[in-house]
Amino acid sequence: MPAFNSLPGFREFYPEDQAIQNHIFDTWRKTATGFGFQEWEAPVLEPLELFTEKSGEEIVRQLFNFEDKGGRKVSLRPEMTPSLARLAAARAGSLRRPVKWFAIGENFRYEKQQRGRLRSFYQFNADILGESGPAADAEAIALAIESLRAFGLGETDFRVRLSDRTLWFLFLQSIGIPEECAAATLAVVDKLERLQPDDLLKAMEEALAGSPANPAEALARIRGFVAQDSLEKLAAFFAGSGPVSEGIQPRLADWSALLERLAAFGLSDFISVDMTIVRGLAYYTGFVFEVFERDGDGRALAGGGRYDALVKKLGGPDMPATGFGMGDVTLRNLLEAKNLLPAPPSGPDYYAIALAPECRSASLAGVAALRRAGIRADYSFKEGRFGKLIQAAEQAGAKNVLIYGPDELAAGVVKIRNTGTRAERTIPIASLVPELTKTFP
Amino acid sequence: MPAFNSLPGFREFYPEDQAIQNHIFDTWRKTATGFGFQEWEAPVLEPLELFTEKSGEEIVRQLFNFEDKGGRKVSLRPEMTPSLARLAAARAGSLRRPVKWFAIGENFRYEKQQRGRLRSFYQFNADILGESGPAADAEAIALAIESLRAFGLGETDFRVRLSDRTLWFLFLQSIGIPEECAAATLAVVDKLERLQPDDLLKAMEEALAGSPANPAEALARIRGFVAQDSLEKLAAFFAGSGPVSEGIQPRLADWSALLERLAAFGLSDFISVDMTIVRGLAYYTGFVFEVFERDGDGRALAGGGRYDALVKKLGGPDMPATGFGMGDVTLRNLLEAKNLLPAPPSGPDYYAIALAPECRSASLAGVAALRRAGIRADYSFKEGRFGKLIQAAEQAGAKNVLIYGPDELAAGVVKIRNTGTRAERTIPIASLVPELTKTFP
Repeated sequence: MPAFNSLPGFREFYPEDQAIQNHIFDTWRKTATGFGFQEWEAPVLEPLELFTEKSGEEIVRQLFNFEDKGGRKVSLRPEMTPSLARLAAARAGSLRRPVKWFAIGENFRYEKQQRGRLRSFYQFNADILGESGPAADAEAIALAIESLRAFGLGETDFRVRLSDRTLWFLFLQSIGIPEECAAATLAVVDKLERLQPDDLLKAMEEALAGSPANPAEALARIRGFVAQDSLEKLAAFFAGSGPVSEGIQPRLADWSALLERLAAFGLSDFISVDMTIVRGLAYYTGFVFEVFERDGDGRALAGGGRYDALVKKLGGPDMPATGFGMGDVTLRNLLEAKNLLPAPPSGPDYYAIALAPECRSASLAGVAALRRAGIRADYSFKEGRFGKLIQAAEQAGAKNVLIYGPDELAAGVVKIRNTGTRAERTIPIASLVPELTKTFP
Repeated sequence: MPAFNSLPGFREFYPEDQAIQNHIFDTWRKTATGFGFQEWEAPVLEPLELFTEKSGEEIVRQLFNFEDKGGRKVSLRPEMTPSLARLAAARAGSLRRPVKWFAIGENFRYEKQQRGRLRSFYQFNADILGESGPAADAEAIALAIESLRAFGLGETDFRVRLSDRTLWFLFLQSIGIPEECAAATLAVVDKLERLQPDDLLKAMEEALAGSPANPAEALARIRGFVAQDSLEKLAAFFAGSGPVSEGIQPRLADWSALLERLAAFGLSDFISVDMTIVRGLAYYTGFVFEVFERDGDGRALAGGGRYDALVKKLGGPDMPATGFGMGDVTLRNLLEAKNLLPAPPSGPDYYAIALAPECRSASLAGVAALRRAGIRADYSFKEGRFGKLIQAAEQAGAKNVLIYGPDELAAGVVKIRNTGTRAERTIPIASLVPELTKTFP
């Protein structure tokens, strides 16, 4: 007899767990729909090329990829954005813009297991395509925030760390870092908080290899830049810049528009300007953000940003895009820590018991009629003694018990007992549904 | 530039398609919950062994299976029942019985594409564990029927073909077919309607090889058996049976109990007694059924039956079980053919437009307040002229437009325009949410 277990990093959901998953999915879905986003879905299994084209060959070691029986190189998706870009590209000509889409899907990454990092996880993705201005970034960030608030989380629980790869590139240009070293430099910035000073300098030397820029000086100026934690400070920081960074002032105007919109939404308290956020993935092109828990492990709850070049790269037209992803694992852990999980699902509204075999048909007919009327109804598979069946009804969590006994049957009635108060009333069998839909819930 | 497509046999769901999927999933979920079933879920990727242990090695050629980066033999699930059995087995001691569980999950089969048969499909599974009597079979069949009725389908659209592997085995025993040939014989019965007479006889010869039974005679008697299409006819057919089939009378009593329960539920019109149904999979042990379209291609919409030995086989205790699976693909095709698909999702309830930049913040604040109150609200990313913005609101399918112009702003009001009637009214900005939640929807 082999021992059967699910695979490491994969989760099973018993009903009490699945009820929580459904609560998370429902809350995401309701919030996104309320914002005017429409849901889409794509296969969890995709051509491998879709992911390597977007992220490079190095992604493969993190994938559940294989060759299918038709010789196709395929992979379970690690994320949904490439599929989204493909769908949008295929209908780019006919989609009404802005396109506001969301998806709730399972994603897979072959990686070391740790708290909050599983090999299978669900992610809520929301994206806005076809709008290049900060209005779309504000809308995406607002949805990320309101999606978390809808669970009962507030500004003491999480914050959005907002940054900007456009401003980063302009800044790097202003300090003399050549364009061809910019992406590598940002990869070093991504490790600013994690690496030791010596390792950081070494990494910067590698990023700037072959360029005239001085790594130590660049690091010092970068540290000066990331210390600016408000738009006002950033504006002051750049006030003295020369003509080399002429794009900076218009970009600060975009920042101003973005923050004004978030303020109008009443969300300023959730926003921290934080240039240490650069988002590892090379395809981000503008505003980027990550949402973090405020205390505990301070884990990331969501992350996103603008990716204006991706749809074109995956075969579509020029189509600006911005969006975010929010995973279920860290969120669920946080909701649990904050006592914000929903109550377990309740039992049936009515539970029918038949006290003798001749009462069976009447009880089943009653159950069927209630169910068809949209009322949650269950019953005992066996007839029997009152005490035992009432116990079964209570164990099932029933709010009310419908009692079909020989006496009731002879009188053409059914007795209804409230499980909590033990109050009983009797109504004609024929008026069961009209009576109970009238008084329901 | 590589051409990007999804894999053959996999579907993409644009919003108008996903709305239909959600309608199907919601209807399944609501019906099952109304019956007192609780939802569970398991990984889509499982150890390969879980499926080969249940179905034998020959299942592998229909699987999306591979070796993961840790050297584990894994497979995308072709069905959910083995995972269900594992979950039930692991908690068999603590689960309150009967266990009534359902799941809605994606399944994967590597097979030739044809109408109604895709490589990825969603399936609604409902199972009852811990109850061996026909009461559980009746409940499962009732849920299968009511799940379809909940879409608006009726007895002219589909029927349940009900059969019984227990009665089959008793019958085969009564005509002298040895127990060790019974499963192979049923595999031939499964092809009774599809094979030519010569091929059928040949298949029966193979099934009975080494036994004293005569294949041609067995086939003739089997044809006599499957012609009995009601319980009354079955009872008459068996009335003359000798002691070799002494289990038959108690089994006919189970049939009687099952049909009585279905009659009490008001579902007799949906049921056909049809012994040609044997269900291919060897693990079925009692009542089996398939639900078919009544016209068109007459495709199968659902199938199921009792599988009392499986939980034990997969590591659990003796735990009787019955259930069914219902796929989304054939169902969706049928709903489309019967004009029972839901209307496309409607646009936002309110769509805000700002006629000048200085009105932007007020309009965004209004949108944010409505969304937080649970009202679906959207807005134009750009300010501009009335006519153009009203057009954008109408294209978005908005029911009402909130007009924030300089005059309104100066007066502290917002104008509300009904997109259909073009009627307008003005309310103070401060009372927007109380007014609109009062009159909403």
